[in-house]
Amino acid sequence: MSAKYVYFFGDGKAEGTGTMRDLLGGKGAGLAEMTNAGVPVPPGFTVTTDTCSLYSASGGKVPTEAAEQQAEAVRRLEELLGRKLGDPADPLLVSVRSGAKFSMPGMMDTILNLGLNDRTVRGLAERTGNPRFAWDSYRRFLSMFGNVVLNIAKDEFEDEIRGLKRKRGTDSDLDLTADDLEELSGAFQRIIHERTGSDFPQDARVQLDMARDAVFRSWNNDRAIFYRKQHNISESLGTAVNVQAMVFGNKGKTSGTGVGFTRNPATGAGEFYGEYLLNAQGEDVVAGIRTPKPIAELKDEMPKVYAQLREITGRLEKHYRDVQDFEFTIEDNVLYMLQTRSGKRTTQAAVRIAVEMVSEGLITKEEALLRVEPTQLDQLLHPRIDPDAAVTVLAKGLAASPGAAVGEVVFDPDEAVEMKAAGRQVVLVRNETNPDDIHGMDAAQGILTATGGMTSHAAVVARGMGKCCVAGCSGLRIHETEGYFEVGEHVVKKGELLTLNGSTGEVLLGRVPTIDPEESGEFRTFMGWADSVRGLRVRANADIPRDAIAARNFGAQGIGLCRTEHMFFAEDRLPWVQQMIIYAPMAKRHRARVERLHRDLLDAVGDKKSRLESDVAAAEKDLAGPQGKLDEAIGKILPFQRDDFRGIFKAMEGLPVTIRTLDPPLHEFLPKREELMVERAVLKERGNDPKRLAEVEDVLRRVEDLHEFNPMLGHRGCRLGITYPEITAMQARAILEAAAGLVKEGVRVFPEIMIPLVGDVTEFRHQRAVVDRVAREVERETGVQVPYLVGTMIEIPRAALLADEIAGEAQFFSFGTNDLTQMAFGYSRDDAGKFLPEYVDGKILEHDPFVSLDQRGVGKLIAMAVEKGRGARRDLKVGICGEHGGDPSSIDFCYRTKLDYVSCSPYRVPIARLAAAQSTIRAQSATAASSTA
Amino acid sequence: MSAKYVYFFGDGKAEGTGTMRDLLGGKGAGLAEMTNAGVPVPPGFTVTTDTCSLYSASGGKVPTEAAEQQAEAVRRLEELLGRKLGDPADPLLVSVRSGAKFSMPGMMDTILNLGLNDRTVRGLAERTGNPRFAWDSYRRFLSMFGNVVLNIAKDEFEDEIRGLKRKRGTDSDLDLTADDLEELSGAFQRIIHERTGSDFPQDARVQLDMARDAVFRSWNNDRAIFYRKQHNISESLGTAVNVQAMVFGNKGKTSGTGVGFTRNPATGAGEFYGEYLLNAQGEDVVAGIRTPKPIAELKDEMPKVYAQLREITGRLEKHYRDVQDFEFTIEDNVLYMLQTRSGKRTTQAAVRIAVEMVSEGLITKEEALLRVEPTQLDQLLHPRIDPDAAVTVLAKGLAASPGAAVGEVVFDPDEAVEMKAAGRQVVLVRNETNPDDIHGMDAAQGILTATGGMTSHAAVVARGMGKCCVAGCSGLRIHETEGYFEVGEHVVKKGELLTLNGSTGEVLLGRVPTIDPEESGEFRTFMGWADSVRGLRVRANADIPRDAIAARNFGAQGIGLCRTEHMFFAEDRLPWVQQMIIYAPMAKRHRARVERLHRDLLDAVGDKKSRLESDVAAAEKDLAGPQGKLDEAIGKILPFQRDDFRGIFKAMEGLPVTIRTLDPPLHEFLPKREELMVERAVLKERGNDPKRLAEVEDVLRRVEDLHEFNPMLGHRGCRLGITYPEITAMQARAILEAAAGLVKEGVRVFPEIMIPLVGDVTEFRHQRAVVDRVAREVERETGVQVPYLVGTMIEIPRAALLADEIAGEAQFFSFGTNDLTQMAFGYSRDDAGKFLPEYVDGKILEHDPFVSLDQRGVGKLIAMAVEKGRGARRDLKVGICGEHGGDPSSIDFCYRTKLDYVSCSPYRVPIARLAAAQSTIRAQSATAASSTA
Repeated sequence: MSAKYVYFFGDGKAEGTGTMRDLLGGKGAGLAEMTNAGVPVPPGFTVTTDTCSLYSASGGKVPTEAAEQQAEAVRRLEELLGRKLGDPADPLLVSVRSGAKFSMPGMMDTILNLGLNDRTVRGLAERTGNPRFAWDSYRRFLSMFGNVVLNIAKDEFEDEIRGLKRKRGTDSDLDLTADDLEELSGAFQRIIHERTGSDFPQDARVQLDMARDAVFRSWNNDRAIFYRKQHNISESLGTAVNVQAMVFGNKGKTSGTGVGFTRNPATGAGEFYGEYLLNAQGEDVVAGIRTPKPIAELKDEMPKVYAQLREITGRLEKHYRDVQDFEFTIEDNVLYMLQTRSGKRTTQAAVRIAVEMVSEGLITKEEALLRVEPTQLDQLLHPRIDPDAAVTVLAKGLAASPGAAVGEVVFDPDEAVEMKAAGRQVVLVRNETNPDDIHGMDAAQGILTATGGMTSHAAVVARGMGKCCVAGCSGLRIHETEGYFEVGEHVVKKGELLTLNGSTGEVLLGRVPTIDPEESGEFRTFMGWADSVRGLRVRANADIPRDAIAARNFGAQGIGLCRTEHMFFAEDRLPWVQQMIIYAPMAKRHRARVERLHRDLLDAVGDKKSRLESDVAAAEKDLAGPQGKLDEAIGKILPFQRDDFRGIFKAMEGLPVTIRTLDPPLHEFLPKREELMVERAVLKERGNDPKRLAEVEDVLRRVEDLHEFNPMLGHRGCRLGITYPEITAMQARAILEAAAGLVKEGVRVFPEIMIPLVGDVTEFRHQRAVVDRVAREVERETGVQVPYLVGTMIEIPRAALLADEIAGEAQFFSFGTNDLTQMAFGYSRDDAGKFLPEYVDGKILEHDPFVSLDQRGVGKLIAMAVEKGRGARRDLKVGICGEHGGDPSSIDFCYRTKLDYVSCSPYRVPIARLAAAQSTIRAQSATAASSTA
Repeated sequence: MSAKYVYFFGDGKAEGTGTMRDLLGGKGAGLAEMTNAGVPVPPGFTVTTDTCSLYSASGGKVPTEAAEQQAEAVRRLEELLGRKLGDPADPLLVSVRSGAKFSMPGMMDTILNLGLNDRTVRGLAERTGNPRFAWDSYRRFLSMFGNVVLNIAKDEFEDEIRGLKRKRGTDSDLDLTADDLEELSGAFQRIIHERTGSDFPQDARVQLDMARDAVFRSWNNDRAIFYRKQHNISESLGTAVNVQAMVFGNKGKTSGTGVGFTRNPATGAGEFYGEYLLNAQGEDVVAGIRTPKPIAELKDEMPKVYAQLREITGRLEKHYRDVQDFEFTIEDNVLYMLQTRSGKRTTQAAVRIAVEMVSEGLITKEEALLRVEPTQLDQLLHPRIDPDAAVTVLAKGLAASPGAAVGEVVFDPDEAVEMKAAGRQVVLVRNETNPDDIHGMDAAQGILTATGGMTSHAAVVARGMGKCCVAGCSGLRIHETEGYFEVGEHVVKKGELLTLNGSTGEVLLGRVPTIDPEESGEFRTFMGWADSVRGLRVRANADIPRDAIAARNFGAQGIGLCRTEHMFFAEDRLPWVQQMIIYAPMAKRHRARVERLHRDLLDAVGDKKSRLESDVAAAEKDLAGPQGKLDEAIGKILPFQRDDFRGIFKAMEGLPVTIRTLDPPLHEFLPKREELMVERAVLKERGNDPKRLAEVEDVLRRVEDLHEFNPMLGHRGCRLGITYPEITAMQARAILEAAAGLVKEGVRVFPEIMIPLVGDVTEFRHQRAVVDRVAREVERETGVQVPYLVGTMIEIPRAALLADEIAGEAQFFSFGTNDLTQMAFGYSRDDAGKFLPEYVDGKILEHDPFVSLDQRGVGKLIAMAVEKGRGARRDLKVGICGEHGGDPSSIDFCYRTKLDYVSCSPYRVPIARLAAAQSTIRAQSATAASSTA
């Protein structure tokens, strides 16, 4: 059998069905379903999405079979309606509309009244006895065809209309007579000839083919491509073309057209919602040329039609079990439904509608939960720009962290802190941020950066803080020392007001009003359902007590990642951290010598023994200095860390808190190598400050010692803890002392100590021994037994490959998918900006693997590690704490891979809760489906 | 049943057997086997290696059962010989020797004559009628016990002997009388008392326990640990202790002792080889205190004993089917064999013996091939230091690339080139090398670096060049500008002569004589056997024709990796490469704009069209400049590359040549960022050269654009080829034009184009399309069809995980195990020096994974990729081209994983050939064993 490219519908039955969205598009499937359901729909046919794909692939040809099937469908349509395309006596007119699988409003083009030409227009006029209607239809068709198919600017036609109206001294289209409209039709044909060099095609079949091809081409127009990229819609889907007999809302006062929703799509309220126009065609309503009336007025103007419309749309809502967004036309008092589809709605409306439909018994709680896109919830949790405000968009960057922020521009993090202290609100503007800037980011309302992607430092930290951030706004040229930035034509100075829209990436001039989030009763009900459905637990990544409190308020069931090093950067701690870093290696060298000598001493006798004894004394003296400095530094850092942990434990009372030991390479805490090199060169050149020069050379030497070519693959994570076990010991002590103190006070704490960057079980064993030793000490000292776990991050591919060995010793796994992605792909997050955007644009990768987990590759490592890990330790606790923990499709993967929890930034916790619930529901219905099959 | 710790042997039968080397050690197993074979061996018993492990683990205690079994064995020995330990009338004397599974000569300690004390010495004197012998034995025992068990320096005892000899006016021990020796015994006991504070233990059973424990402890002395690390011997094996009845070679002129080999261990010649001393104990021969006689003289002195010795050792060689290294003692004309074991031999001897034993019918070819350690072959391929030369060792670094080199010290690569051109030989001394230094490395005889490990740039490149290199010689302090380096007390100036021993890592002062390699007939026969046995093919990594020729001479069956970028650094090419790098991104940006405008133009009409047309013209003008520069640079580089490839193809006529497209990140070819920053700062400070400042700022801007935080994970490999397809196209063209030219001349060429750093099949598909397009062009232009393959490196973990998809498109895989190891472990090779040595020392890792493939982790990825790859494409060619391709244990892994070939540096090709043959043989014999089982 040959392929079927064209599906007919009409006369109460359709060749397609409502389930064939892939092939017929959403609109085509809907028309088929409505036809089959007995809804009054004008008949027609759908040319499939496959035809579009073949059209694109062949460089603009439809298969011969498709053309033949289309001709046959036209023939059937002509037969059904008793009219013929191009028949001057009684012409069949059709609409041609695009219809992709997913609704893409405004993205695709539509043509109405196709089939009119210089002869059929007169036939139509005669047949309907309404020349004005005929000529109005013709001029509308000509301008639409000219614009959509032939690419002539709308303005050219509009200018002509405006000119004529001026001549007639009116400003309403309705005042134009049939003759005026005939004159316009002639003028429009002249425009078409001038602009294209060819006559307007009079042959209706040629018109139809050209219109169909224009729809196919419009799949690849820039707006459509942009929309699909924004909404993650596959490029390969293609669009269908729907050809449908025209019905006319512009046949006079007994005709009309309208659009509506079965519920309010902005608030979710259960009210019939929409608008209509009498004596008009659909695009008059949509295009806003005339002001439509609220649909309630139709009840008075046409009570019977109104009742029928309510009855049909009510039936449609029940049939589709969702809010319907519908279009209708009334032709001579007869109602036709042109389209119905699930209505787009705001998040607020989505939640309310879902909850109310459950109480109406229309849908189940599970269905309700599937009706809200998890990422949409972000809108409910952050302040947002007032949608009615007038704005001046300066630039657009990446929507890196949602919400809205208004503040004075500031470039220096320290200044941000001072201004905040003075009660002012600031927006921190940086080329890029780094860990040194955290205090400034914390003080700011929002952060704007010129470089860096969705997972840049600024983006990650801002999301963690729940703070609005626009990143990678490449149009910005920042002149920090001069105190201003340029963008396009604009210059914005320090202290000027700026508004950021972190949900769209827009940078707005001045203060734009914002709306604060508020939590509705429906939202609480809704999230409660999500929690009761899901098995996957949701934790948050939080480094400080304040974030932990926020996380708990958002429903976090524990902390999945507390990064201890963020505490190191605070101004009052950094000098001690630096002292620790400088003296740890020095003390280590001396200690190794002392130990070696002691070992030799064990076996020594006689002279050798006494020689060794004096060597030992000297070596111990050499060790004393650096060891003292190291001990002092550690002694200073310990109480800071203990206090921080205490705060977090208290905030999360009764819930587990996973704390990761030191991860970044040590040189991150020291001054930058290049800057020191430059300073040294300048000091040498000047020759007037030998003291500072000596200092700089000394620091540079230590920095050089720690310098790495690829820090991401360097001396960090547990590698540090193994070479400097005193750091791990200090952190373990801070954790366990804080916990012991709280246990004494009756607070329930569940610390989980996490060893980062483990690649072999031996590494884990080493670090676990350090933690366990400290735990015994603290228990002895405090008399309190703290319940604690020791586990590891799985973030090195080799750890996933050898997860069974590691699980033999580790009590939990947490997938560090940021690093795991970096190493599995061999991409550095910091550098991938050089090629990743091109990879995503050029379809080398389906999506940025740092945003949505690469399930095919990285996911394979995760699945392997879970299987091996649980094989070795049945009750192994397994979670994920990378950036992916807040991404719904990644969460779904975690659910399917049977993780115990996901951990994400506090503001993404509700998203994760809903995503987890949806995964459970989808899996259950798949199981139910397969068990009944 | 309780554990057996002690194994008895004697009276023609032994409790152990020759196969129990794990438990009894090599020596103990040998004694058991010899006893069972009827060889005259003094009776005794072996305390097992398990006992040693328990001793170490318990902090110095032997299990009670072991002590009991030992007491029982002593009782049996006493019974068998009719003498008792400590019996003053007729004392039993024993030797106590270590014996680990693998022979560790000189590493462990031995005690003879144990059982003597102040009373038994007199009993012995009476029983043997030889007081001098008794006192000589006693003083020897005392000094050995004092030194080995009690840690007193040998010198203290030797001083006493020298003093006495001086007093007696003689310089031979033999002139000392029984009374003298008695006096010495007293003096020795006084020394022991002084040094330890305790009396020498008179109880023979206490002596035995102390000696046994000293042997156990010696397993962990520094020399032993060092030896094991050098020879990859497991720490957990432990040593056995062999207690054996003493026989005496020092009972007078009818007694004696000797050592020997059944063949010459230096040359391999089939001659009885050894030396002996009459009236002496074994350590006199070994320690070199007296000069022993060649064993041939024994034939005259004791013809019957000599004949018996030849008969027994001949029988032993046949029994063990290998050269025997034996020790014997003659007591009153009775021959005792004390030890026999496989004789250590030079590589030259190993090869000759193996080949000759085959022709003698003693062993099979397969056994012969197993008799030579593959890495030993290095000695035959490089010049080496004359072993008889006197040397001054300045320092010791890593034996990074074998061989020997003599030359004048030079620090600057350019100077190295000049000096070489002037006919001088140089040794290049650098802190570390980088790609800029390659011309200097090429000009030098050898390379010495202060930092960097076995896989540092210097090491890898030197091995590739077959050039001697000592790397990571951390004692060196190089003052390059001042023209000297310091090491310890020494200062070595530029121009002074230095000798490097790349096989040991020693740096020697002055010119030390070297011996050139020569290829013997036996070597050729031997390697021929290896080739006939192995299935795994061996290719070489070579970037230039000269290396390819060397590789072919060493038996390479193709090139497995030709790195195209090494050709980029040559002085006459680098400026063009830099031009390409700078203009490629610029041209790309302009081209994108032109393309976008052209696309818009397609749909445009009217005014818009004409506006766009002028935009296009302007954009095309903007593009012309950079594109011209880019085209010019590519046009210049192409012929260079084509010539290089032509040379390599010619050298490898008839064999496959795998060429990798560009891999390193582009900034490697530009000046260093930090240096530019410093220069800019200094120029700004001086303010007198604005032109140069502008230049520096311009270059710096471009370098900053290309700067990466983690270049290893950055914009490199196929990522470059995808963003700049013109580079891939240029390289493909150079390869295919060179090949087409040769095909025309009748030369058979088999280019295999390898795409690096592929992580997804889409990347490969993109690059393959570029190559195929160029291939079609070249075919059209030249009329020649070149047979070529396009394949990929598997060096990204994700590529291994998705190897089935990739194999759907790629014609071959080559494992880039350097990168695969880096990413699987998350270690940067350049930075791992900060923790890897400590990891290996501290047993966190068994070995450096960059030297020997991590079979448990990385190996799992390789095995997975092979399986998936071959699953998708049955005839997929699979090889390995990382540094591991020349490491025998990694080669064995490749064999077992069913790779088609390994590729290694030219000088390691013979090693790989032998290693591959051994793998085949071992696998076949394992199969044979399991099929008969």
